[in-house]
Amino acid sequence: MSAKIQNLQQLRDQLRAFVAERDWQQFHTPKNLASALSVEAAELLEPFQWLKTGEIEELSAETHTAIRYEMADVLNYLVMLADRLDVDLLAAANEKIQLNAQKYPAQTARGSALKYTELKK
Amino acid sequence: MSAKIQNLQQLRDQLRAFVAERDWQQFHTPKNLASALSVEAAELLEPFQWLKTGEIEELSAETHTAIRYEMADVLNYLVMLADRLDVDLLAAANEKIQLNAQKYPAQTARGSALKYTELKK
Amino acid sequence: MSAKIQNLQQLRDQLRAFVAERDWQQFHTPKNLASALSVEAAELLEPFQWLKTGEIEELSAETHTAIRYEMADVLNYLVMLADRLDVDLLAAANEKIQLNAQKYPAQTARGSALKYTELKK
Amino acid sequence: MSAKIQNLQQLRDQLRAFVAERDWQQFHTPKNLASALSVEAAELLEPFQWLKTGEIEELSAETHTAIRYEMADVLNYLVMLADRLDVDLLAAANEKIQLNAQKYPAQTARGSALKYTELKK
Repeated sequence: MSAKIQNLQQLRDQLRAFVAERDWQQFHTPKNLASALSVEAAELLEPFQWLKTGEIEELSAETHTAIRYEMADVLNYLVMLADRLDVDLLAAANEKIQLNAQKYPAQTARGSALKYTELKK
Repeated sequence: MSAKIQNLQQLRDQLRAFVAERDWQQFHTPKNLASALSVEAAELLEPFQWLKTGEIEELSAETHTAIRYEMADVLNYLVMLADRLDVDLLAAANEKIQLNAQKYPAQTARGSALKYTELKK
Repeated sequence: MSAKIQNLQQLRDQLRAFVAERDWQQFHTPKNLASALSVEAAELLEPFQWLKTGEIEELSAETHTAIRYEMADVLNYLVMLADRLDVDLLAAANEKIQLNAQKYPAQTARGSALKYTELKK
Repeated sequence: MSAKIQNLQQLRDQLRAFVAERDWQQFHTPKNLASALSVEAAELLEPFQWLKTGEIEELSAETHTAIRYEMADVLNYLVMLADRLDVDLLAAANEKIQLNAQKYPAQTARGSALKYTELKK
């Protein structure tokens, strides 16, 4: 299991094997995976909560490593959920960027953190 | 911007361009990206919250599409955060699987949803 | 600090004293408090994530205690945020119930977990 | 249902009536309530995510109202979960403050946002 992972398909395959070896499919309903992903995302937020910005210089090596593994957890649950719901993550991400490009045209959204519903006003 | 994205590097490059065109780097501190990721993860959980399991058959086509885009949002913020913190997501995911394999050996964890701290007892 | 707390005002006062003694107001911006509240809410969700329903019978005494303290954390951050934003929590909760009563009339919403935007269809 | 709510017990009673009238107890397992609470906490975080601090002066009247109702949602789910798990929220909150007072003694924690595990070093 130690060969280098090159892409999301290989990561999915490795996660499938990991889960199958432990007979964990029974717990991995989409609802439970979505809960777990949400919990991991909050654990990723936790080390940032009292920091000013969390820029890399503000993080100790220990905290950076912890954050890196929380990001890994988020990705792993996301890939398992995508596998279960038959979602192509890269295609979805690409489509979402196109949709956001329409909601936030560069000339009106430049330099603004307003939501698109506010921008239109 | 409509060419097919083949891998996480290309997704990162596309996100960099999207953000730069809107001059949004100023808002994208790691702390803010981690908050946004956490909010998107909760939006992904939201359609599942009253469902039994959220298996694909339980989802309307409309809900499946909404979930797919929420997954895209999570991935996009995760890739932007990784870019900002200099994290190789696939390498981190792979390492985390190795660590979990040690914490949850197949023979003791099989069929159990206990946390590793409980398994050891 | 050990006298029994009788209501939300007394809880707020106790939290104010706790924070002032530690000079923590500087970290307690509304944004940071909202992040912390969100992190605690996820920690509250965590022990439920692989359970069927999390009914009280399904929880060990240890888990029940852990959940109870996570609920306390959520309430404490909520009260501190309300104090900072000048929100009367009970009045807001009451108003929200009235609003939900309009969005979800008993006769149409009975026995349904559909969102009000779906109910109207 | 429009009489003023004076305390958490009255809020609990009002929520019980609201849920019973809609026959929603079936959806309100502790697990589902914890998910819903977590989703609402993220919705509360959402308007703050790109702000500097979210101090009351930085919020439009509209945003303040939206935040106020998200806080109401968090409280309402918290009270329903406490009812289901037989938790006295004020007693738990009080105990948690005592525990935190031990983990974060005023003289060592003053002016520091370090976690207690870090403070001890």
